[in-house]
Amino acid sequence: MRLPTYGDVARAAERVHGAAHRTPVLTSRTADAASGAQLFFKCENFQRMGAFKFRGAYNAIAALDEAQRRAGVLAFSSGNHAQAIALSARLQGVHAVIVMPEDAPAAKLAATRGYGGEVITYNRFQEDREVISARIAHERGMVLIPPYDHPEVIAGQGTAALELFEDVGALDALYVCVGGGGLISGCALATAELSPGCAVYGVEPEAGNDAQQSLRSGAIVTISVPRTIADGAQTTHLGQYTFPIIREHVRDILTVSDAQLVEAMKFFAQRMKIVVEPTGCLGAAAVFAAGRELEGKRVGVVLSGGNVDLAGYAALIAN
Amino acid sequence: MRLPTYGDVARAAERVHGAAHRTPVLTSRTADAASGAQLFFKCENFQRMGAFKFRGAYNAIAALDEAQRRAGVLAFSSGNHAQAIALSARLQGVHAVIVMPEDAPAAKLAATRGYGGEVITYNRFQEDREVISARIAHERGMVLIPPYDHPEVIAGQGTAALELFEDVGALDALYVCVGGGGLISGCALATAELSPGCAVYGVEPEAGNDAQQSLRSGAIVTISVPRTIADGAQTTHLGQYTFPIIREHVRDILTVSDAQLVEAMKFFAQRMKIVVEPTGCLGAAAVFAAGRELEGKRVGVVLSGGNVDLAGYAALIAN
Repeated sequence: MRLPTYGDVARAAERVHGAAHRTPVLTSRTADAASGAQLFFKCENFQRMGAFKFRGAYNAIAALDEAQRRAGVLAFSSGNHAQAIALSARLQGVHAVIVMPEDAPAAKLAATRGYGGEVITYNRFQEDREVISARIAHERGMVLIPPYDHPEVIAGQGTAALELFEDVGALDALYVCVGGGGLISGCALATAELSPGCAVYGVEPEAGNDAQQSLRSGAIVTISVPRTIADGAQTTHLGQYTFPIIREHVRDILTVSDAQLVEAMKFFAQRMKIVVEPTGCLGAAAVFAAGRELEGKRVGVVLSGGNVDLAGYAALIAN
Repeated sequence: MRLPTYGDVARAAERVHGAAHRTPVLTSRTADAASGAQLFFKCENFQRMGAFKFRGAYNAIAALDEAQRRAGVLAFSSGNHAQAIALSARLQGVHAVIVMPEDAPAAKLAATRGYGGEVITYNRFQEDREVISARIAHERGMVLIPPYDHPEVIAGQGTAALELFEDVGALDALYVCVGGGGLISGCALATAELSPGCAVYGVEPEAGNDAQQSLRSGAIVTISVPRTIADGAQTTHLGQYTFPIIREHVRDILTVSDAQLVEAMKFFAQRMKIVVEPTGCLGAAAVFAAGRELEGKRVGVVLSGGNVDLAGYAALIAN
């Protein structure tokens, strides 16, 4: 097992160039005035598919050799990763199988098929998706691309931070949401090379602080599925690749409450006119909670995605 | 009375440079696929104050002579124009008086004061804001800056289209919302010079089609205050400056329903991850309603603003 390095992130940047959007970096006078810091929001809510996941999926497929490309790729996910794999595969002429629960929302099944993925459904009360996926991978010789614990997925996600540093220069601190740790691992690799003095902070939902526990205890801690509106961070544990990278390169893991996430979502809608999903607000909520602690600093914040169910989003921002 | 020309728009662009944001132009593969056109959305929802109004207000104040600057400026408005004047005046060291109804939302009164404006309130059931404003202007020697019917306001608003053409080149059609006609007049002047083959379309709410009636009858038609969610287009008539410019440079005025505005708002939130106020959706709603009529064309759409009351916004996009 070889951990990815900054070199992998740099190669990923070449691969995703022209396929992924180079997302904008937005600023807010209001947020700067409140914090006394200079904040740079890297807007992955404007990424293709509406989330950073496209970067890692595209890079992982682009890194395959010819035989692997011919066999195709496989992913199991009911979220953004599945759609990212389906779209990335189609763009690169690779067949993709996505294993999804048969009771997944019809819109998600349709979207994944719309992106060109072959959807195989299973009964999530009677069957284990990992067993099914392993069988299909074996039968068809397909490469399984997991959502975060994979060197090329991690390297691809790191291109978000690489672009941020290219656009705004070195920073004092960078705040990144943590689910399984793919995004923050890649971003931490980019930071160590491109802005070595910058402290990287991970941010988790209060209800699911497994990464915080893991970092503090020195071993991967597994929790039960946390109850939080940050559905992208409802992971139960870090991975074999992401944990050592986080341990080496991340200064600390912070947590925020769902109420703080809602306040951040409202701020983005009201003041910055952008839609950010709850998980995407983790980093910003931690910065907003820091008050004047970041005064005088140049601070990056990755807004990881903007995929919301409109009715649910409306309910959250209404009050 | 001298109508503004493209030269005034070009001068306005120099004046607002560095003060107004050069707002981004966003695109959407989904919208392009649905229409068959190539759509360019000029995002004035990302403008300072959250709306294009900042451009015209800033330019009108920047165009004052020294004596006028010392005397200060006056505006009556309960909307974006008042805040745009208050902020633009402060940025240029000019005193601003804003005449607002005493029962205006506390948040709006506070915001206007927060931008540095001196707020004078009146009882809108017993007093006439135009009489009050005229008296203050006379007593203090202040210059009244109206929200749309003013050459430098029109010229300032035109810088939105000027930037769009600079960024994306010539277009086949440009869709702009119409209230009092300040934005479309300025944009039409920029279009005639920078993309002369481009057809400019104004878009009004169905319930308040005074500009459409005016263009078709050849004289300014005044209607009663229309009932529509597009509060920025609840004007009752075009102006002495805006009507002749529209008559000369605008191909046609179209209308859309409130339901079409809501669909457009939802599209922007769901697919493009941006918050656009109902008035800001007028141009886009007309484009979406055109189906495949614009196939093969390069089409600009001005999204005029993103200032929403979150609870009201949530209620509109929830269903």
